[in-house]
Amino acid sequence: MRYSTLDGGKRLRPFFVLQTSRLFNVAEEAAIRVAAAIEMVHCYSLVHDDLPAMDDDDLRRGRPTCHKAFDEATAILAGDALLTKSFEVVAGPNTHSDPQVRCELVRELALAAGGQGMVGGQMFDLRAAELDMDVQAVTRLQNLKTGRLIDFSCEAGAILGKAAWQLRQALKAYAHDLGLAFQIADDLLDVEGDPEKVGKGLRKDAEAGKATFVSLLGIERARAQAEMLSRQAAQHLDCFDDKADLLREAARFVVERSL
Amino acid sequence: MRYSTLDGGKRLRPFFVLQTSRLFNVAEEAAIRVAAAIEMVHCYSLVHDDLPAMDDDDLRRGRPTCHKAFDEATAILAGDALLTKSFEVVAGPNTHSDPQVRCELVRELALAAGGQGMVGGQMFDLRAAELDMDVQAVTRLQNLKTGRLIDFSCEAGAILGKAAWQLRQALKAYAHDLGLAFQIADDLLDVEGDPEKVGKGLRKDAEAGKATFVSLLGIERARAQAEMLSRQAAQHLDCFDDKADLLREAARFVVERSL
Repeated sequence: MRYSTLDGGKRLRPFFVLQTSRLFNVAEEAAIRVAAAIEMVHCYSLVHDDLPAMDDDDLRRGRPTCHKAFDEATAILAGDALLTKSFEVVAGPNTHSDPQVRCELVRELALAAGGQGMVGGQMFDLRAAELDMDVQAVTRLQNLKTGRLIDFSCEAGAILGKAAWQLRQALKAYAHDLGLAFQIADDLLDVEGDPEKVGKGLRKDAEAGKATFVSLLGIERARAQAEMLSRQAAQHLDCFDDKADLLREAARFVVERSL
Repeated sequence: MRYSTLDGGKRLRPFFVLQTSRLFNVAEEAAIRVAAAIEMVHCYSLVHDDLPAMDDDDLRRGRPTCHKAFDEATAILAGDALLTKSFEVVAGPNTHSDPQVRCELVRELALAAGGQGMVGGQMFDLRAAELDMDVQAVTRLQNLKTGRLIDFSCEAGAILGKAAWQLRQALKAYAHDLGLAFQIADDLLDVEGDPEKVGKGLRKDAEAGKATFVSLLGIERARAQAEMLSRQAAQHLDCFDDKADLLREAARFVVERSL
């Protein structure tokens, strides 16, 4: 569990929880607990996704994947325990004084991570190579597989801060555009990236015959689309003051890492 | 997910939730939601436990295991989604009007199912064949692997019903003795049972060189121990009236199925 969570990923989802929490002056311990829980969910999904029966990856963040460093059974159980732990942490009394807020966070996390969210997206992805996927289908797949958890990361600050409905919607819209830009950038990295720098195996989608934003749109249009979405994401933050500046920068960062 | 949950197991854990809920006049919908959630957790653990990297079982409840009926990736994801769904259901507003109760249920379920409960027990079990296990060690392993979730099933009624502390403790004590009796009976069935009737592969522990209550105590002493624990379990219910009669019968049932 430690090997696969404390190994220096980008911590993008925790960053969103902490930064959106700042907008509403949420207590730091609360934000950190939810941030840690979401990172546990993200890392469990990587551990299971890397298994031989799934993507069969040997390398993750520049190190052997969990089942390579230990064994398959340990990787399955470490993932299961991380997922379970995330709910223990979110439901804990120190996450928020109002249990209604904790329940809402548990529900939203479960909806984002479960069969009609992230895991549903992974299941969809397993069948993707057999399906005739257009841009809309790839968008839907990516929204499930990675978008829903990013949405929740950005909404978490608003839930913790009991934010007004429009502000919560603004963060959701930001997350939605940013998540898609992030995924297009990921597809660009998969084609153009340096495996040494990226720290994981690349060109797997093309080898598996999977449709991606890049295979469907071409490199130029995919990049233009990612840049447009990144600008649009930042615009959703216009209702916030300079406390949202790091979130604005993040919208640029997710695209620029693929330049 | 449906294949591995709606396939006619004994539903022992849901039975405990419903029967302990009756003692405190808990609303039926509340009890059923928690019962369903615990059964989802139990079934997810079986799906992952049956995987080739774990126990590598082909048969469960008289049918092909999930990864045999579908494939390994589907089984991993179905298990993940069931675990996630269980928390969504428990945290849902219809589970209890008091969100404090729902949060407590989420926490207790996560603690019972996670790395220091059921999953911790499965990890321990993977190493059991290499360890020099005595009766105490086997008791500890089984308490983690199956006991913690049975404890929670019996405590759930008391949590939902906001029961007095002593009554909750009585149900915990009942669950503890019954859970151990159940596991000893399981070990007896593994040695003496008819695979056709039991609906799963047998004699696997002996083949794997794992210590069990039967291998350590012998058949006669193991049976006597199970019967003693079963009687003791029923005695913990003396503080309840005839509403607890089915729970008293259950204590007998778990041992008698191995006679």
